[in-house]
Order: sequence, then structure tokens, then C-alpha cells
Amino acid sequence: MKRFLLPLACLSAGVAQAGADLDMANKIRSEGFYNSHVMHTLEHLTDKIGSRLTNSPQMDQANRWTLEQLKAWGLENAYLDPFEFGRGWSHDSALINLVSPRDESLHGIPVAWTPGTQGKVEGEVMLFDAVTEADLQKYQGKLKGKVLLMGEQPPIGKPKTIIFERHDSKKLEELKEFDPSRPASHEGWMTPIRKDDRLQRYQFGKVLDAFLAKEKVAAVIYRSSRQGGLVRVFGKSHKVGESFPVPAMIIEQEDYSLLQRMLDRNETPKLALDIKARFHDEHTDAYNTIAEIPGSDSNPEVVMVGGHLDSWHASDGAVDNGVGVAVAMEAVRILKALDVKPKRTIRIALWSGEEQGLHGSRAYVEEHFATRPQPQDKAERALPRYLWKSPGWPIETKPDYDKLSVYFNMDNGSGRFRGIYTEGNVAVKPLFSKWFSPYTDLSTGAVSNLSTGGTDHESFDDVGLPGFQFIQDPLDYSTRLHHTHIDSIDHVIEDDLKQASVIMAGFLYEAAMADERVPRKPIPAAPSQLKQQRLKLETEKERRQRERDARQVLDTKAYGI
Amino acid sequence: MKRFLLPLACLSAGVAQAGADLDMANKIRSEGFYNSHVMHTLEHLTDKIGSRLTNSPQMDQANRWTLEQLKAWGLENAYLDPFEFGRGWSHDSALINLVSPRDESLHGIPVAWTPGTQGKVEGEVMLFDAVTEADLQKYQGKLKGKVLLMGEQPPIGKPKTIIFERHDSKKLEELKEFDPSRPASHEGWMTPIRKDDRLQRYQFGKVLDAFLAKEKVAAVIYRSSRQGGLVRVFGKSHKVGESFPVPAMIIEQEDYSLLQRMLDRNETPKLALDIKARFHDEHTDAYNTIAEIPGSDSNPEVVMVGGHLDSWHASDGAVDNGVGVAVAMEAVRILKALDVKPKRTIRIALWSGEEQGLHGSRAYVEEHFATRPQPQDKAERALPRYLWKSPGWPIETKPDYDKLSVYFNMDNGSGRFRGIYTEGNVAVKPLFSKWFSPYTDLSTGAVSNLSTGGTDHESFDDVGLPGFQFIQDPLDYSTRLHHTHIDSIDHVIEDDLKQASVIMAGFLYEAAMADERVPRKPIPAAPSQLKQQRLKLETEKERRQRERDARQVLDTKAYGI
Repeated sequence: MKRFLLPLACLSAGVAQAGADLDMANKIRSEGFYNSHVMHTLEHLTDKIGSRLTNSPQMDQANRWTLEQLKAWGLENAYLDPFEFGRGWSHDSALINLVSPRDESLHGIPVAWTPGTQGKVEGEVMLFDAVTEADLQKYQGKLKGKVLLMGEQPPIGKPKTIIFERHDSKKLEELKEFDPSRPASHEGWMTPIRKDDRLQRYQFGKVLDAFLAKEKVAAVIYRSSRQGGLVRVFGKSHKVGESFPVPAMIIEQEDYSLLQRMLDRNETPKLALDIKARFHDEHTDAYNTIAEIPGSDSNPEVVMVGGHLDSWHASDGAVDNGVGVAVAMEAVRILKALDVKPKRTIRIALWSGEEQGLHGSRAYVEEHFATRPQPQDKAERALPRYLWKSPGWPIETKPDYDKLSVYFNMDNGSGRFRGIYTEGNVAVKPLFSKWFSPYTDLSTGAVSNLSTGGTDHESFDDVGLPGFQFIQDPLDYSTRLHHTHIDSIDHVIEDDLKQASVIMAGFLYEAAMADERVPRKPIPAAPSQLKQQRLKLETEKERRQRERDARQVLDTKAYGI
Repeated sequence: MKRFLLPLACLSAGVAQAGADLDMANKIRSEGFYNSHVMHTLEHLTDKIGSRLTNSPQMDQANRWTLEQLKAWGLENAYLDPFEFGRGWSHDSALINLVSPRDESLHGIPVAWTPGTQGKVEGEVMLFDAVTEADLQKYQGKLKGKVLLMGEQPPIGKPKTIIFERHDSKKLEELKEFDPSRPASHEGWMTPIRKDDRLQRYQFGKVLDAFLAKEKVAAVIYRSSRQGGLVRVFGKSHKVGESFPVPAMIIEQEDYSLLQRMLDRNETPKLALDIKARFHDEHTDAYNTIAEIPGSDSNPEVVMVGGHLDSWHASDGAVDNGVGVAVAMEAVRILKALDVKPKRTIRIALWSGEEQGLHGSRAYVEEHFATRPQPQDKAERALPRYLWKSPGWPIETKPDYDKLSVYFNMDNGSGRFRGIYTEGNVAVKPLFSKWFSPYTDLSTGAVSNLSTGGTDHESFDDVGLPGFQFIQDPLDYSTRLHHTHIDSIDHVIEDDLKQASVIMAGFLYEAAMADERVPRKPIPAAPSQLKQQRLKLETEKERRQRERDARQVLDTKAYGI
């Protein structure tokens, strides 16, 4: 595959421009390293506000605080940008105790958007393992007052040996190799066959919800998807009128396994639950926080930076994604402190609804840049977006589509920037290499032509706009922090955040001052007939992806989780 | 240091006996691998009984069950062996919630032998950092109804990179090198200077207890000594009349740090606690479970095997030390199933009170094998044993002292046996090498002349009796399981336990059939004048050990923790 690199290298030389602004780089480094606010910003978000579930009162607080803070730093045109989302939800406390055959405190967190228990409830534990409507029959009339373990789970395996790591130079070299077997777009991962599978599970989920309500189940219990005492959370539907009907909790794998073994031995474990949770229906709009450093050009183009402000409710949303917000805010704070006068407008966007499917950034892109026809079929339109069979073509652009130069996102934990993914946009390589050049003592500056998915730059990339994520050191993001109850500021590495803030500010400045807009990939278009036929088949890789889906028990994992 | 190995090698050749009984090894392997009961035994201890805090109702249950199980397998002379211990204690459930400035469920476990809260209590959080009586003055009159954070703690550091590992051949080679800078006995680590320090902290602890009671503190909170969501527990005094006066809980490092940061920012966090805990004063004796396969010799000598049956209360005491008990029981079960007729008696001892200072095994050794004069001074005698300044000399042996050949212990998690520590007893090396010889496909069989401390073989070694621990693969014992809330059967590796059971059975059989008793080290004696003077000085190593002690905040860690 090495030969894919050669043309890139040639291209780089071809479009090289003058060097980066080293004087400005000195100033940015000085402000970013020796007058940093980044941990202070993060501390406010994570410690003072805490978790920031989309549309929860804490998320409202975070929207207001970020707005005021950005204004206080001198940013302009600051506002909260609404989009239709659904209900808010929050919880205070949640108790789950084994009360028979012996007493033991278990450790769990409610599933987001599920009701509380209205006081303490007790119920016998029962294993519930149904994945089709036919499976439900055998449970009919047997579930009243029961606490259900949702799905038979395999024994806990050995832990990952290495839970904290940085990329070594070998890994960074690997990332430079293009992989043509990957689909051209993020959307491409969701093949028709895979989509059918997920649609089936989604539809069964609706039947299941009604069944659980009708059978008067006392509560349902899910197993955390991380072992070793970590509770890793998710949520049920936040749409008005679709709320999950019974109290639901996620518990430690160790606790779940204990209950399962008790059932295997024909014991009758009983649980007591007391979950204080509530819905918030004051508003169904969620909000992105937006602010700008206006550009000096007449009718200036725009350079954007952002991260998602919302988090799950398990802990304080520190590495997912308080850090992305704090770094984006710090980058514009640094530039404002240096009183830069950019040619292009520098705009920050702190997204909401990311964890439930990139809702905030998608809504923003649709409002400002480009839309795609929604499904004709009303029933299809009512489905979550990731299940639409026909996200229509062509992409319809709006006037501002041509004005956006680039969007930079951060959402992969607190690890320092080791490079950047171009999302297959080879034309940006020389620019990015140049923009990294004042920071080679801080970062390898590896430019990978690969894509990286799962967060808000996708919303831009999906309509052909340049949206990028940096390559970050993995640290313990995926092994233990992502969506778990220990995602607190304790596990954030301050020096890494300062490094990221400095590089982010440098990139923003260079993008805002560059002679040209950041080059783009060809705008995505409807797949050809041949491609459409091809998509009905499945590669080995796609089949494995679909099998991974199938292992997601009872549709506990929504998009983006 | 390599030259220390040479004399050992020469000696080995000198005392070599005939080979191991390979026919019996075949039978042991067959029974141990293909008809194993070890996981079943462990499951009963950990899942059905659960945690087994010394003198708790669950420990009583464990004593009774192990007694009946050993009898059912055909062991004889089975009984529960009492020794004076103190109060029992147990807890059902424990709730700790942050209720101001925001709501959040925290995760904690009560400190053993502390009172419950008698319903829900709420109190403002306050940092309490006193290590001398003078320090207490500034808190006088200010603590009523407060919830105290016990000690200012440093920020949480980076996690250990590797949390699960097996010894590689390099490590096993290193373990073969003797280290003459270590003290000759386990007791030797407690130098006079170190003992003075600990005595001071112990005495301050008593003053502190009275102060907290007088000031009507609502509750005290300790920080877990492991990060990453793990709650690692300990206990207060179990002695009648010495109980800690206020409810006390250990919480996750992440939760503790949050509260500390809130105080740093002059917020006034409030906690709600509801701890259901109780003392059990029905009996102050604790019990070791003892049983035998009687020897066929007239007046047979004795070979012993054991592990401690008691555990901490955080989880189910699986790797500490359900596995040691299950392996010891499995070893005698295997031998009984094979209907062996050993020349020497094979005796199993499942100790209690290990976690509070090897109480069960010490009491047993004193009762059967050897005693040492207690301190003359009544006040000194009332102190915990590890603080006695003058554990008297000489060791006074009892008739059975000469009849004990060897004691084998297992208490280092569930990792497979990679070899054995001789505790500096070089004379056993050829024997142990021979006994490992039928199992070289299962274990390297490294014989290390080093000592390993912290568990019940010490009680034997301290009076000059051969007591040994095997070298085990570390796995995740120290990194995340030891005394934490996830020490459940989930993290036990079945194949490793089978391997350990087979080797343990093999060693017991060979020891029981050997021509000679296992050779001994010289009996410990009072240190010489020169040595006594020397002990008043401190080596660099000892000073570091003492500094580690000092970092133990507010004497939260008793002996053996």
C-alpha cells in the first residue's frame, strides 16, 4: 500500500505556499502555555456544572455559562442556536441493593430517559432474553412485578492488559497509509443490509417497550459494557411520546454476573431499587452555543472550531467531551487575548445532542450550509435518521456553503494532538503540514489521509464541507473513561490540553489568514447504479461490522454510543 | 549477586533424594484437571456466602460450610478451632449522595467496624487534616454535624499502564537471586524506629477517636487507595470497647477529589449518608476450620496446607482469598479422592482473622507449636501485637514443634504457580525442585531463596517452622482486585486454579511420603548486642519504608492491609 503515499508527496510540493506565521506562533505558544485558562474552563464545566445530558437543566446551565464566558472574552454575535430535539431528563440518586438471598449494595446508574421508581420497589430477578416478537410469547403473564436482567451475557473475560498508552512512531507511520477498502463516506459504513438489521431491532424495540409496560414489569437491568467496576451508560428515546415505560438501570458487569449465576443455580435473587429521575418538558428545543471573532474581509469567509458540550449522565463528561469544548474555547480565547484581526471570521460552535446522533451539528449544517431531501415516506421520516433508507440526493447547498473554509473538531479524549486526519482530502496535506511546522517540538504533526468517525465533523464532511479531527494519543479514553462513571476531570492531562489548545489556535489563525479557502473533496453524490447493486452485497469487513451490531443486546446502543 | 547461586547449586546435588512419585503425579493431574471441584468450591464461598469478614455472620457460615464439606469428602478430626478475636460486624447497604451544590450519587463502602447512621443523615463537608494532638485544637467546637474528609489528598495520578501480567522468564530468573540486604525475618522489617512511629500514630488515633465523638461529628470519609472507580476498603478496631465512634465510609478517589476541589473553591458541598451497619457481639471468638487425612505412621508427623477463609467486606473475597481456600480444599479433596494413605498426617487449616493481622494462624501456632513470652508491661500487652517493643525471647517450643514437617500457604491471587519462595531456607531447594519435576509442563518451578510476606506462612516462619508461599503470576491482583469492591469470582482464572491445585496436591503428597521431615532454618533467637545497636540506626531502605508508613493518612491502614 506504500505506493499510495507517493502521489500525495508529489502533490504536497505542488501546492506549497509561503511558511506559517512564526511570529504569531510565538505569541500563541506564550499565551497558551503560560497564561492558560483551559483547566479553569474545564473545571467549571465538569465540577461546577457536572454532567450535561442534552436538554437537561445542567445542559441549559452549560449553554448559558459558555455563552456568557465567550462574550466576556470579547467574542461577538454570540447566541444560543435552537434545534428540535425532544425531552429533557435528569436523575438525582439511584440505589440498587441485593436483598435476597443475601444483602449487598450493588452499583448502578439509571438509563437516561427512563422513569424513576416513585419510591422504593422490590422485585424478584428474572432473566429476560427475547429478540423477536415470537420470543415474547413465553413471557406473557409472567413478568408482573419482576426485575428483568436484559439478556444472557457471557462471563467476564480477562481485562485489557494495557489501559493507558500514547501512539508510538510506528503507529503514526501506519496512520499515514491510506486504506482504499474503507467506504468513501461515514454514511457508507451503514450498508443496506446492516441498516435492515438495525431497523428490525429498532422496530422490535418498540414492540418490546409496549410489552414491558403491559406486563407491568417493575424494572429492567442492563449490564455495563465495561468490566472492572465501571458503569458505562446509554439512553433510551428522548422523543416526546416515545419514552421507555419502566425504570431501567445499568449495573456493573460484576454485579450482573452475580445475579445471572444466582439464577443459574435456581436461587431467587431479589433486588430493591430506588431511582429518583424525572423528565423535563419545559422546552423540546436543544441549543448549540455559537460565537465569533468577526473577519475583517468584506463579506468574510468563515473558519469554524468546536466540540460537543453535551455529555452522558454517568459522571461529569470530562474527556467526553468537556476537553473538546475547553480546548475550542481556549483557542478562541488565546486569539482574542492576542487581539488578532483575522481576515476570515473565526466562529466557535459548542454542539448539543451529539451523544444521541450528532443532532446539534447536523441541524446547524442544514440551517446554514446544505440540506438533503428527507424521505418522502412519513413513517420513514419518523425513524431516527441513521435508519433512513433514502437520505435523498442531490445535496442542496445554501449561499453560506461557499463561505465556509474549514471546521476543526476535538472529541477523542484529552490526549495531545499527534497529527490530523484529512478524511481522504489529499489536497489539504501541504497546508496542514505547513500549519504544524511551528509546533514540531510539540507534535509529530502526522497527516493521515484516513477518516475518523463518530463525532460532529461528520456533519460537515457528509455534505462535502471540510471538517477535521486531530489524531490524539489514545490514553485511557476507550479503555475506561468513555461514557463511564469515572469520566471526571481527575483523568484529564493538563499539559496535553495546553498543547492541543496551542495547536488549535495556530490552525484557526492560519486558516483565517490563508490566501485561499481550504480545498474540498468532490461533493458527495448519489451512488451509481453499479455502486447501488454492489451495496446490496457485503464485504467480509461489513459482515463483521453487522455481527458486532447483532451482539448489541436488545438495542441498548443507539447511534453514536 | 550471581555468586550467591553457586553454593545453592552445590548443596542441591548433595542432599538429592530419589525422584518424585510419577505414578501418583499422573493420578493427581487426572483428578485435578478432569474432575475438578475447585470452581464449585470457590463459587460457594464467594457467590453463595459472599464476603467473609472475621466474626461476621457470613464468616460463621463459611466456617460451618467448609467444615461440613471437608467431612463430606472424608477428612477426619475436623473441627472449628476458636481463638480470641473481638467483635463481629456486618453491613447491608450504604448510600452516599452529594446533595449540594448539585445532586450526584457517589460510590462508597462503610469502613469495617464502624457504626451505621441510624437513618439518613445530612451534613456539610469539611476537610480535616490533623496528625498531632496540637492539630486538633483548631477544630475544637467546629465539627458538630459535619462530614469530614479525612486528610488532604494529592490529585489522582496517571493510571498504571499495565494492569494484568504474567511473570516472564527474565522476572523468574531475577527472583532466583538472593538479596542479603533484606532482614532475616518478617519481623525484621519493623525496625525500632519504624515501630516508634507507628506507635505514635496508633496512640494519636485513640485521642482522635475520642475527639471525633466528643465533637459530635456526623460522619467521616476516607479516600479509596485505588483510583479508577475502585473502592478499596479497610477496618477500624475490632476489639471490644475500642470501637470507632462515628459512621465512616471509604469513597472512590474520583468522588473524594471532587469534594476536595469544591472545598478549594469555597463551595459548601453537602452529603447525605444512609449506612446500615451493625456489630455482632454474640461471640468474641473467631474460628479456624481444621481437618485431616490422618497419617499411617505411628505417631505421625504433620504436613499442613492452608489459606485464609476470612476476607474484607467490599466484595466476595474471591482472589483474596477464596482462591487460596478453594485450592487448599481441592488439594486435599484430590488426595482423598485418590484414597492416598500418607505416612504423615495431611492437615488443612482455613484461617480466620488474617486480614486484621494473621490472628488465626498465630493463635494456632501458639497453641500447637511454639510461643514467645508476651510483654511484661500490661499496657504494652494491650497494644496490637505489631507494636510490641519486646516480643520476648527465647521461642518456647511445644512437643508438636518437632512433628510439623511443613506448611504450604496460598494467598497471592488466582495466578498460576510459577515456582516457590524458600524464605531463605536453602536446604529445601533440592526437595522443591524434585517435587516440581512431574509438573515442568505446567510450571517453570522456579525456586527463589527470597522471602515473601504478608500472610499466614509468616506465623510459622516467625517461630522457625518451614512455612512457604508459591510464586504466582501477578495478573491483576495488586493493580485492581486486592481488597476492592470488584474482588468477585468473575476475575478468577479457572485454569490457573486447577494448575495450582494439582501442584499443591503433588507437594502435599511428596511432603507426606518423604523419607525425612522438610529441613529447617536455624531457630530465630534474640538479636545480639551488636545487632540491637545496629537496629537503632536505619538503612536507606528502612527509612523509605518508614516514609511510606507516614504517608498512610490518619492510621487508616492496620497491619496486613
